[in-house]
Amino acid sequence: MNNLQLEKVIKNMHAEGLKQILVCAPKSIQYLTGRFIAPGERLVALIIDQSGKAQLIANKLFAQTPLEGAELIEYSDTDDSAEVLANCVNYATLGVDKEFKSRFLLPLMAKRPDIKMVLGSTPVELARMIKTEDELEKMRYSSLLNDRAIEETIMSVRDGMSERELADNYVAASKRIAEGESFESLVCFGKNAAEPHHETGDTRLKRGDAVIIDVGLMYRDYCSDMTRTVFFSEASEEQKYIYELVRQANAAGRAAVRPGVKLKDVDAAARKVISDAGYGQYFIHRTGHNIGLEVHEYPDVSSTSEIVCQKGMTFSVEPGIYLPGRFGVRVEDLVEVTNDGCNTMNKLSRELRII
Amino acid sequence: MNNLQLEKVIKNMHAEGLKQILVCAPKSIQYLTGRFIAPGERLVALIIDQSGKAQLIANKLFAQTPLEGAELIEYSDTDDSAEVLANCVNYATLGVDKEFKSRFLLPLMAKRPDIKMVLGSTPVELARMIKTEDELEKMRYSSLLNDRAIEETIMSVRDGMSERELADNYVAASKRIAEGESFESLVCFGKNAAEPHHETGDTRLKRGDAVIIDVGLMYRDYCSDMTRTVFFSEASEEQKYIYELVRQANAAGRAAVRPGVKLKDVDAAARKVISDAGYGQYFIHRTGHNIGLEVHEYPDVSSTSEIVCQKGMTFSVEPGIYLPGRFGVRVEDLVEVTNDGCNTMNKLSRELRII
Repeated sequence: MNNLQLEKVIKNMHAEGLKQILVCAPKSIQYLTGRFIAPGERLVALIIDQSGKAQLIANKLFAQTPLEGAELIEYSDTDDSAEVLANCVNYATLGVDKEFKSRFLLPLMAKRPDIKMVLGSTPVELARMIKTEDELEKMRYSSLLNDRAIEETIMSVRDGMSERELADNYVAASKRIAEGESFESLVCFGKNAAEPHHETGDTRLKRGDAVIIDVGLMYRDYCSDMTRTVFFSEASEEQKYIYELVRQANAAGRAAVRPGVKLKDVDAAARKVISDAGYGQYFIHRTGHNIGLEVHEYPDVSSTSEIVCQKGMTFSVEPGIYLPGRFGVRVEDLVEVTNDGCNTMNKLSRELRII
Repeated sequence: MNNLQLEKVIKNMHAEGLKQILVCAPKSIQYLTGRFIAPGERLVALIIDQSGKAQLIANKLFAQTPLEGAELIEYSDTDDSAEVLANCVNYATLGVDKEFKSRFLLPLMAKRPDIKMVLGSTPVELARMIKTEDELEKMRYSSLLNDRAIEETIMSVRDGMSERELADNYVAASKRIAEGESFESLVCFGKNAAEPHHETGDTRLKRGDAVIIDVGLMYRDYCSDMTRTVFFSEASEEQKYIYELVRQANAAGRAAVRPGVKLKDVDAAARKVISDAGYGQYFIHRTGHNIGLEVHEYPDVSSTSEIVCQKGMTFSVEPGIYLPGRFGVRVEDLVEVTNDGCNTMNKLSRELRII
């Protein structure tokens, strides 16, 4: 077990009054044990007691060696894994990982009607939310490498290429420069850029298109994530105006970050720039999300988040404007909260680029 | 909505006495609606009533167009998605998708204590389990393409190459020949072949190594999956003996398949060959799994499966022997159940190969 991490989690369990939690998210198990186990459809769970007792339940197939500080409980494909799990939980309330699936939760509830199941991810999430200096160094370097990979990708833009081809260029750069993508690269041309969840496809680049590149890579298990929007060959006055608004919203969001400020106020600072210009209805998503071992970590930077910025938090600031059927712009950077503000981990320019 | 598929699901709901089910697995939603929506951490759910009423609940970001035969219910990031969902369910019992996560299930249970939640994936799983002729044609072709891709991969084996390099050769072939991998390619050399869940890595190939290649590709949304084990440069008498045992176990498993036979008896037929030779303890996993839109579909071909083979089912037969610290062998083919037996969709030879 990683004792520093375990201590943070136990402290958070105390604060929430949880005597026992069930952790199943593979990256959370990795955070606590140093081991990454891909469970597939099988049960892998780490049970943590407030006393510090830890039980790792895994299928024999995963061939786990003994784990210092934890009891290893193995089962085989012919065992009833819910039964194995039911024998490992023994407090009146169990805090359950939000990723835990019904296939395991409902049988567990049936076997242990005496135990109240509540959502119990926050002790681990709040621990993971505050990065150690070691984690921050990896995060910073991951973002610096991402700056390089996205710059190479932008330089590879050619007339008539497809979104997929440009995304493939990023993938190749992310493998050469670091350890590959941290999520599936998103490239949108022209009116596709007006759909924040467009799927990278066969659309070909043409003069006057907005080009959204939303990409990240892995460096020693830590994720980067950034977005740049550039214009191909030319940009209309409206495109330039919208771009400038989004760039200012991104800057305003980052400028609002410092210890003690709520994430909803970071969201509000970015959103205000866009709303004041009359485009509020076209900024249709949250301003950002925390990031670390995973691209999307707890919590979001949204209009409803009461979570307060603390030193060591790392999250994205990524406002956008999406004009349906026409074009869209998003500018995204990762920040780390410092003693008196924030450090923007992405250093690549945000100036308007027509390429 | 895909009406044929919906009718099958409703028939299965009748049989199970379920008045309403919640479907969330993206491939199940695709099966029923023709639409693939990648939910990320957001809620996407399809509520099906026994009456045929269907409600698709999705975040506005997914920008769904109206769906014939279903009501589209959209919410935004600032809405309480559990509340939206709670308003869509209205029977005493709700059948819940086994993939549904605690983050949505526990809040839904808190909002609707009047509704009993039970596992309710089988109506869709049993529908997906029996492939239509159209689906079977895609499955057959996917496996034929996989035969080609794995043969190219085997031909590319070179002294000193890494597992990763060989896996990359398969990935490239799967993209050239079809639509890319259906799961992360697994390549194991030497003693790594004794771990069924080894992760493809930097181990380099040397004379006398067993080489396990477990790979699949996508063809028009349908998955293939096969394993071949070959030996590099030479094979010991023991390796040849173990290989022959596994090959016979694979053949015995496939020979047992016909309508009316239970899947546990298919498992037993394959397992018997290995157990009779005294290696039962080294065949440490189930014999196979169903496959279709996803690589692993319901149900497994395991020693506990009471499910009966029916025409149109497609599953893997993949026995193996794993000798810890030494080597392993697995031979896997996909079969489709026919009127009087099965058709093995993989046509590539299973003869011992020393390359």
